[in-house]
Amino acid sequence: MIKAIFFDIDDTLYDSTSLTTMARKNSIRAMIDAGLPATDEEKLFRLLETVIQKSGSNYGRHYDELLKELGVAWNPKIIAAGVVAYEHTKVGYLKPFLRVVPTLLELKKKYKLGIISNGLAVKQWEKLIGLGIHHLFDIVATSEELKYEKPQKEIFEFAVKKLNLKPEECAMVGDKLYSDVLGGNRAGMRTIRILKGKRKNEKPASKEEEPDFEIKDISELFRVLEKMK
Amino acid sequence: MIKAIFFDIDDTLYDSTSLTTMARKNSIRAMIDAGLPATDEEKLFRLLETVIQKSGSNYGRHYDELLKELGVAWNPKIIAAGVVAYEHTKVGYLKPFLRVVPTLLELKKKYKLGIISNGLAVKQWEKLIGLGIHHLFDIVATSEELKYEKPQKEIFEFAVKKLNLKPEECAMVGDKLYSDVLGGNRAGMRTIRILKGKRKNEKPASKEEEPDFEIKDISELFRVLEKMK
Repeated sequence: MIKAIFFDIDDTLYDSTSLTTMARKNSIRAMIDAGLPATDEEKLFRLLETVIQKSGSNYGRHYDELLKELGVAWNPKIIAAGVVAYEHTKVGYLKPFLRVVPTLLELKKKYKLGIISNGLAVKQWEKLIGLGIHHLFDIVATSEELKYEKPQKEIFEFAVKKLNLKPEECAMVGDKLYSDVLGGNRAGMRTIRILKGKRKNEKPASKEEEPDFEIKDISELFRVLEKMK
Repeated sequence: MIKAIFFDIDDTLYDSTSLTTMARKNSIRAMIDAGLPATDEEKLFRLLETVIQKSGSNYGRHYDELLKELGVAWNPKIIAAGVVAYEHTKVGYLKPFLRVVPTLLELKKKYKLGIISNGLAVKQWEKLIGLGIHHLFDIVATSEELKYEKPQKEIFEFAVKKLNLKPEECAMVGDKLYSDVLGGNRAGMRTIRILKGKRKNEKPASKEEEPDFEIKDISELFRVLEKMK
């Protein structure tokens, strides 16, 4: 019997794909407005994506790197314009997907709820707080704190043990086959893939990446949980 | 004849005192809500002010230090709650003082406009951009870039030279006697003190800190500039 449900954050509880895409596009536009000597927004957006991929999403100086790549001298006005546009856009997009809050509130009556997330602890908590759902979880496990990251099964096992449960009593809900589903399966949990974000059309690369269930909307969890009984 | 007017940013163009006070108070409240084991908001606020004074306002981990001071283990939920509350409050308060924008637009018809500011270049530009006035200035001189800070006269001299002017052709407007007025006087500029923010009741500590004019509102600049002719 399922006693706890764990969730991924990005593209599972909110539209992370739209947030990062729109925030980056708006930052490019603001940097051009602030004097960046380039006009092709689409090309700059692709260059920024490359820079972010190279330096990692938690690196703090993507815009400095972008200027370097363009051969433009360091310019605090342009960098600040990018930062402000990103932050302002973020506030607008950091909202839960439809039905996330009422679904979590309803699930909370019968199940323990948790988060299993790859990333910096403070940054992931900032998302939960910005989403207004930080009070709803019995445990939040982040890779920074645990030194293990999805799909390593240790991060799932830690979360399960913390609630004094067995893996088969837990379900993992996430959009990513290679981390949420693969890791949950390896840890012996039930896995539910949610078809959201940029990875929603990906196919499992192996048997281990196949989820027990697929849903398009978080509210379908009630039906899935019924079936699991 | 005055040809350029330079401005300080904090407590001159916007209400920096209210922003930092309210953002810190809201961050304390959010951290208590997130589980900080303490309830005296006023006492925590004073402790946070001490921490910020000790580590400097540009240090990135004030809330980590606050937890240390309280003997509380590092807690990403509490820290993130403080960060998010601070950032959200900031957006609400980062607005120009009344009449700043129309006054700057009117002045721009006849004068060069500049900023002379102590602080990190990107952070100061973020303020100008957040205030929506970043396109109005012919020069923005920050202490980080110039390695001199107010009241050192070199930062004023740099800004003046950059516009190909002489100091006596320039006026400095700011709220701080010990940096804006003292520095402007030493550089040979005309100085205008604006009575805003937490320092508005301070008295000049020396003859050198006495401004040529005092105004309560930026729109009084028109009258003052007439007198200077």
